[in-house]
Amino acid sequence: MKIVVDAFGGDNAPEEIVKGAVGALLADGGIDLVLTGKEDVIKKILSELNFSPDRIEIVNAPSVITNDDVPTAAIRSKTDSSLVAGLDYLKKNNADAFVSAGSTGAVLTGAALKIGRIENVTRPALAPLLPCVDGSKILLIDCGANVDCRPEMLLQFGVMGDAYMRAIGVKNPRVALLNNGAEEKKGCELTKAAHALLKESVLNFVGNMEARDIMSGGADVLVADGFHGNIALKASEGTALSILKLLKDAITGGGIAAKLGGALIKKSLKSMKSKIDYTESGGALFVGVSKVVVKAHGSAKAGTIRAAVLQANEAAKAGLVEKIGEAMKDGGR
Amino acid sequence: MKIVVDAFGGDNAPEEIVKGAVGALLADGGIDLVLTGKEDVIKKILSELNFSPDRIEIVNAPSVITNDDVPTAAIRSKTDSSLVAGLDYLKKNNADAFVSAGSTGAVLTGAALKIGRIENVTRPALAPLLPCVDGSKILLIDCGANVDCRPEMLLQFGVMGDAYMRAIGVKNPRVALLNNGAEEKKGCELTKAAHALLKESVLNFVGNMEARDIMSGGADVLVADGFHGNIALKASEGTALSILKLLKDAITGGGIAAKLGGALIKKSLKSMKSKIDYTESGGALFVGVSKVVVKAHGSAKAGTIRAAVLQANEAAKAGLVEKIGEAMKDGGR
Repeated sequence: MKIVVDAFGGDNAPEEIVKGAVGALLADGGIDLVLTGKEDVIKKILSELNFSPDRIEIVNAPSVITNDDVPTAAIRSKTDSSLVAGLDYLKKNNADAFVSAGSTGAVLTGAALKIGRIENVTRPALAPLLPCVDGSKILLIDCGANVDCRPEMLLQFGVMGDAYMRAIGVKNPRVALLNNGAEEKKGCELTKAAHALLKESVLNFVGNMEARDIMSGGADVLVADGFHGNIALKASEGTALSILKLLKDAITGGGIAAKLGGALIKKSLKSMKSKIDYTESGGALFVGVSKVVVKAHGSAKAGTIRAAVLQANEAAKAGLVEKIGEAMKDGGR
Repeated sequence: MKIVVDAFGGDNAPEEIVKGAVGALLADGGIDLVLTGKEDVIKKILSELNFSPDRIEIVNAPSVITNDDVPTAAIRSKTDSSLVAGLDYLKKNNADAFVSAGSTGAVLTGAALKIGRIENVTRPALAPLLPCVDGSKILLIDCGANVDCRPEMLLQFGVMGDAYMRAIGVKNPRVALLNNGAEEKKGCELTKAAHALLKESVLNFVGNMEARDIMSGGADVLVADGFHGNIALKASEGTALSILKLLKDAITGGGIAAKLGGALIKKSLKSMKSKIDYTESGGALFVGVSKVVVKAHGSAKAGTIRAAVLQANEAAKAGLVEKIGEAMKDGGR
């Protein structure tokens, strides 16, 4: 599998990105790695890592698209950016997947414009794998690429999410719909209509799911309008960070016993933190475009990038794009 | 202040409800307490608490509305229920506030039907006070009473939320709008239109707020469509519970050091838990009806009910209903 990595996208680029991509290569020698960005800088980082540049193809791209750029304009004008160079390479040189930790807007806009949609897909969706308390994962689709969705789009998200989970080995994935109540009659206009479509579909639809149950392990795919999914994802993220901060404050501000206790549970805490840290699962798949595209968190460090590259590799090897194309032929009906 | 409490609403009714209401009375002797429900059972609980029934008015109401009842039908048919008896008392006997931990749908439907709206209010909204990491509180309005809101309704939620926070002593409350991005141009059709209205209003509007920042302390009022607010609230609740469970598992399953550490930080953990437990703030205010109505969490125990009764007392004493009526005269424009 040939995987293109945007070495200059993200808060910790380029050092952590290059390091993570090399880490993936060391974990799976079958990967052909392409890095885009400033060639001299990338070569310097590789030499610091004592890694031979011969095993990696470098595409020189001197400019960078940042979060301050307007996505559509930047994709059109900054053709020499690491992001556009990566997407162009993906399209023209028959690579299999693309990974970037750059501006979400620019990655999604760029992928949609340059790579295009799979046949019958109305709108691609951004789908992270979230951790559940029982150790399983749930795919939240969509978490922000599309707001003001139509019910048919939510059905398509279900079909694509189902195809992805099957591709990574989940048998007969349980598909749920994010809603303000578990009962069938509950919901806003959009979710009521989407519920009816999902219920009639060929999917293993298990009904509505409330936001409090996302991490419960009760479903494998959670279908949502991008606005709803975004709120659920960010509320969870914010709460998790706030609790861990409060926990730290409680331990450091709680006297000698608490400090000693904190030291004793440090290892357990760390393993717990890694369980709920969804960035350790890699990134969010941009499902529905004609190549595998993975958007890693903007704050991704080497470990996340490594996981994202391996995730992209796995999806490409599993033939995800072809499988979605097949599933979308009849759109789940 | 005369406060009516539905003694038979909620998972832990009637014992915990009666106990909590009595607790509020002991904390503030100025409260006139009315309990609705099975008179003999209430009297028995009071006698077990060694509390004289003379200080409390009891309205006998033998039946109960449960979560399985269809709200509108139950409000109309179960006129001898503790909930309907409470709302009827509130309306006819010039009481000041009502507290119930019963079925959310039935409490909201009942209050809207029996008590009615404040003039110029299109739709009342359910508004809990949520804890922030800096010790402040943020009022989330609406958290589920209204889905598919119109932009004008969100402006009204802002006006009512502002009036409530002023009534409980917050100066010049900062009003934010729950959105999928902080930038002004971000959002779904509803939030974009609501943003424009809030920006033009007399409120101290501080812009869009992402769900990850709810607990940050960056605003005093968070305006949301009930569907969006519901997802944010429940995602936070679910994440908090999941993390505390994982933390417990990590400690109990982590060997002797972790167990000892867990014992040593127990006190700090408990104080942290009480900080993030929004049920300790009382309940969610049903803002926009012509009396103070507080919906306590269905799982409320005595402590939460006590806080909810004191919260209702405070809101009634502050003249919340009159203040909202005043603010709604020009609807924030």
